[in-house]
Amino acid sequence: MSTIRVTVWNEFVHERTNPEVARIYPDGIHEVLARALRQQEGFEVRTATLGEPDHGLTDEVLRQTDVLTWWGHAAHADVRDDVVARVHARVLEGMGLIVLHSGHWSKLFKRILGTSCALCWREAGERERVWVVDPGHPIAAGIDRCIEIEQSEMYGEPFGIPTPDDIVFLSWFQGGEVFRGGCTWRRGSGRIFYFSPGHETYPIYHHPQIQRVIANGVRWAVPQGRPYDTPRKTPIEEAREPIVFRAPSVHDSRGNLAH
Amino acid sequence: MSTIRVTVWNEFVHERTNPEVARIYPDGIHEVLARALRQQEGFEVRTATLGEPDHGLTDEVLRQTDVLTWWGHAAHADVRDDVVARVHARVLEGMGLIVLHSGHWSKLFKRILGTSCALCWREAGERERVWVVDPGHPIAAGIDRCIEIEQSEMYGEPFGIPTPDDIVFLSWFQGGEVFRGGCTWRRGSGRIFYFSPGHETYPIYHHPQIQRVIANGVRWAVPQGRPYDTPRKTPIEEAREPIVFRAPSVHDSRGNLAH
Amino acid sequence: MSTIRVTVWNEFVHERTNPEVARIYPDGIHEVLARALRQQEGFEVRTATLGEPDHGLTDEVLRQTDVLTWWGHAAHADVRDDVVARVHARVLEGMGLIVLHSGHWSKLFKRILGTSCALCWREAGERERVWVVDPGHPIAAGIDRCIEIEQSEMYGEPFGIPTPDDIVFLSWFQGGEVFRGGCTWRRGSGRIFYFSPGHETYPIYHHPQIQRVIANGVRWAVPQGRPYDTPRKTPIEEAREPIVFRAPSVHDSRGNLAH
Amino acid sequence: MSTIRVTVWNEFVHERTNPEVARIYPDGIHEVLARALRQQEGFEVRTATLGEPDHGLTDEVLRQTDVLTWWGHAAHADVRDDVVARVHARVLEGMGLIVLHSGHWSKLFKRILGTSCALCWREAGERERVWVVDPGHPIAAGIDRCIEIEQSEMYGEPFGIPTPDDIVFLSWFQGGEVFRGGCTWRRGSGRIFYFSPGHETYPIYHHPQIQRVIANGVRWAVPQGRPYDTPRKTPIEEAREPIVFRAPSVHDSRGNLAH
Repeated sequence: MSTIRVTVWNEFVHERTNPEVARIYPDGIHEVLARALRQQEGFEVRTATLGEPDHGLTDEVLRQTDVLTWWGHAAHADVRDDVVARVHARVLEGMGLIVLHSGHWSKLFKRILGTSCALCWREAGERERVWVVDPGHPIAAGIDRCIEIEQSEMYGEPFGIPTPDDIVFLSWFQGGEVFRGGCTWRRGSGRIFYFSPGHETYPIYHHPQIQRVIANGVRWAVPQGRPYDTPRKTPIEEAREPIVFRAPSVHDSRGNLAH
Repeated sequence: MSTIRVTVWNEFVHERTNPEVARIYPDGIHEVLARALRQQEGFEVRTATLGEPDHGLTDEVLRQTDVLTWWGHAAHADVRDDVVARVHARVLEGMGLIVLHSGHWSKLFKRILGTSCALCWREAGERERVWVVDPGHPIAAGIDRCIEIEQSEMYGEPFGIPTPDDIVFLSWFQGGEVFRGGCTWRRGSGRIFYFSPGHETYPIYHHPQIQRVIANGVRWAVPQGRPYDTPRKTPIEEAREPIVFRAPSVHDSRGNLAH
Repeated sequence: MSTIRVTVWNEFVHERTNPEVARIYPDGIHEVLARALRQQEGFEVRTATLGEPDHGLTDEVLRQTDVLTWWGHAAHADVRDDVVARVHARVLEGMGLIVLHSGHWSKLFKRILGTSCALCWREAGERERVWVVDPGHPIAAGIDRCIEIEQSEMYGEPFGIPTPDDIVFLSWFQGGEVFRGGCTWRRGSGRIFYFSPGHETYPIYHHPQIQRVIANGVRWAVPQGRPYDTPRKTPIEEAREPIVFRAPSVHDSRGNLAH
Repeated sequence: MSTIRVTVWNEFVHERTNPEVARIYPDGIHEVLARALRQQEGFEVRTATLGEPDHGLTDEVLRQTDVLTWWGHAAHADVRDDVVARVHARVLEGMGLIVLHSGHWSKLFKRILGTSCALCWREAGERERVWVVDPGHPIAAGIDRCIEIEQSEMYGEPFGIPTPDDIVFLSWFQGGEVFRGGCTWRRGSGRIFYFSPGHETYPIYHHPQIQRVIANGVRWAVPQGRPYDTPRKTPIEEAREPIVFRAPSVHDSRGNLAH
C-alpha cells in the first residue's frame, strides 16, 4: 500500500485561551490527532493551523495532501474565503476530507454541502454512546457495538445536512437526544466523512476508539479515481457519431458565447 | 388543492441580443414558460428578470413564492451574490426550485449543490431523446416512454453533481452522448429539480411535453413540511431526561462561546 | 383531492391470546388503526386479517387498495407465500405500503427489501422518544420536535435494511439505544414507509401523534405515477433511430431465446 | 495487499448449444473471464457452473469466496432456490457480487434487490457506447471517457431496479436508447456491482477495457467490514443504561414470544 499523506488542520484557539482545554490538549488538538495518526502504518502526517500564513493550507500543501482533517470552533469566521475556496476545489478533485465535531459549522463544510449544517447543542458534560449502525462499513472496522463517551457535548437533530450516502454511526445522549454523528458524502471525486464526537473540554481525542474511527475515516477517504475534468466544449467534428451542424446558434465560430 | 404560487425567473439577455432567439421567444423565455404554467389549474404565476431591481427577487417576492423556476445562460456572473444568498436561504426553508438547462452553471445551482455542476456540451442542432427512467415518479406523469426533440444542444457526462435522489429522465444524443437530464435533490426543506432541455436557439419550451414536465416539476416541488429551525442551544434545564451540568465548559453562564 | 383507499392488515393473534393485549385492543390493532384513519378526510378504510380467506388480500382487494398498512408479530410464518408474492407485485406496481413495528420481520418486508431486516430488541416497558430528523418531510407534518412514548419495546441498531431514501424519525431509548424507526424507500412505482413504534402490550396506536404519523405516511405513499411496464422486446423495425440487424443472434426469428 | 478470492460463475449453456457462441467462447464465458482476472495481481480465481453439483456453489466454496461474478441467460429457472438463498445470505454477510449482463434476470439478482429487474432489449448487433459518469469512482479507474463496443445487445430503460448507490456508467445505443449499465448497491455487508455489457453472441468479454471494469468491480466489492450480526435479544440486565422491567409483556421469562 502506498503512503497516505494526511494534513491535520486545527484552528488552535481554545487550547491557548481556555485553561481547561489547555490542560487536555497542551500542544493543541492537532498534535494529539497527528500523533495518533502517525501510529498508523503508511500514514505521513503534517499539521496546519489558522495562525500560519494561508492558514497553512497553500496550494502546495493541498497538492501534497491525500486527506485533510478539519477541526474549528471559535474562529470559523476568521478562515479566509479564498482558502476555503481552494480547499473546496481540492476536495472536488479528489482529496479526502474528515470534518470533526464543531467543524460542522465551518465555512468549508457549509460550502461543500450547501445546507445550513445547523444542529441542536448542549454542553452539560453528559454521557454519549456512539452506535455502529453499519457494521459492514470500513469506517466501523475494529469498533464493537458502540463507543462509550462518559462526558460529551450533546449534538442533536434535526441536523441540517443533505441525506448522507452512508450513516456509519448514530449517537445517543443521556439528556434524551439522538444524532447522525458519523456520516459520509461524495462530492466530485472527493470523499467526506463527518464525525461528531470531539468537544474540546473533554479528552475525547485521547480515546483509542475515537482515534481508530478517525484513522479508518482517513483510509476510506483516500482518493480513488481521477478528478472530474469537465466542462469542455466537444467540437462537432469530434463527435463519436457523425453529425453535421444545423443552425441556428448562439455561439460564434470559435464556440464562444455571443452576448 | 390550494394555489401554487410560481415565480418564473429569466436572465432575459439572448432574446434581446440574438435575432434567432428573439424570433422564437419574442417576449422572452419567461413569458412562454409563464403562459404554459398559467394553464395549469391552481397555478398563480409571476415573472422576474435580471434587469429588474433586485433581479425581481425581493424578500417579499420570495416569501410569496412556492416554487421558483430559473433560466440563465449569458449573464450568470451578473447575478448579485446577495440575491443568490437570499434565494438559497429560501430554498432551504422550503421553496421549490426548478433549474432549467444552462441554469446548471448559475451561481445559485452551484451554491446549493456544492459541486462543479460542469458538463460537456456541443451546439450542433442535433437530435435529443429524453427517456423516462422512473415511470412511477410524479414528474414523469403524462409522459410516454420518451420525448423526442429534433434539435437540441448536447449536454454530456460527466455532469459534476452530487448523486441525485431521483433520476427521472436520461437523455440520448445523436452525436453519441448520454446525460442525466432530469434529476432531483432535497436540500433543507426545499425540493430541487434540474431539467436539461431548453437551449434558446430551438423552440424547446414551446414543446407541450416539455411544458408538461416543468409543470409536473412545479407540483412536485411545492413545500411539503416546515422549515428546519435549528440551530438552537438546548438549555440543560429543558433536557427531556433529567441531567445536571458537569464541568468543564467553554461557554459562559449565558451559553455564549468564550474565546 | 380524490379518495385514498386504505387497507389495514393485521395478523390479529395476540389480541385474542394475550389478556393484556386484549385489554388495550379489544377489537384488534386493525380496528384502532382503521378508526383513526377513517377520521382523515378522503380516506376510505377497510381491514383485512390473517384468518380471512387469502388473508383478506385477494387480487380484487389489492386492486382496490391505494395504500396497505401491515402489522404482524407472532404469525409471520403463517402468511402464505403466494399472498406475499401478490402483495409484493402490487407494491412494485405502485400501491403504497406502511410497515408497522414487528412487521419488520414479515416475509413481505424482507422480500421487498432483500436484506435481513433484523434488529436488536428488548421488551422492558422503557421510555422511547421519536425525534423528527427531517422537518421538511410530509410524513413529519404536524409533529413537533419529538413524540414521547412512556412505555415501548426497544428496537436497536444495527437494523438490517438497505440505506433508506429518507430517514424521517430516529428513536432514543431509555436503556441506551438508538434506532432508525421512520424510514422510506421506493421500489418499482411503490412507496414504502416503515414506522417502528407499536408494540402490542402498550397503547401506542391510541397515541394521537402516532396516529398522525401513520396518516401522514398513508398520504405520502399514495401512488404517484404509472407502473413500470418493462420488460419488453423492442423490435428492430421499431427502433427510434434507423438500424439494421447485424448477426449473430441467440434468438430465433420471433425473438424467443433459443436454448 | 492480501489475496482476493474470486469465483466466476457461469450457467454455461449457450456456449455448448449455439455454434456462434461456441466460436467466441469455446471454453465458456467463465474461462475467458477467469483468465482475465487471473492476470490481476493478488487475484485467486476459480470457476463454477450450473451443471456441477450444487452448481459449484457449496457452503465451502462460498466461505472461501470474497467476490462472486454471475453470468446466466438461458437457464435462470434451473438454478436451485436453496443455492440462491445460500448465495444471497453470503452476500449479506459481506461477499462481493458482480452481476453481468443477462444476470439482471437471475433469481439471485431479483431476490437481493426486491424489484422486477426488468428492462427493454433488442438483439440487433448495434453499437453501444459505455460512458463514465463518475470519474472519481474506483470502478472507472483506467477507463477513459467511454468504452466503444461495436456490436452489442441493446438494454434500455426503464430498468426495474432500486435507486443505485452509485451510477458509474451509462450506455448509449445506436438505435436510440440509454441504460444505467454500471450500478452499485450495498446490501447487508455486501457490495454489488451490475455491469450490463456482455451479450454472448459478441466477443465483449475479450475486450480489454471490459475486462478492466470487471477487475475493478471485483477489487471494489471485496468485503470491507464485518457481517451484520443481528437480531439478538438484548437482556434487560445488559442494558447500557440501568433500567428495570415494567409490565406488561408478550414474552415469557426466557424472552420467547408467547402465542
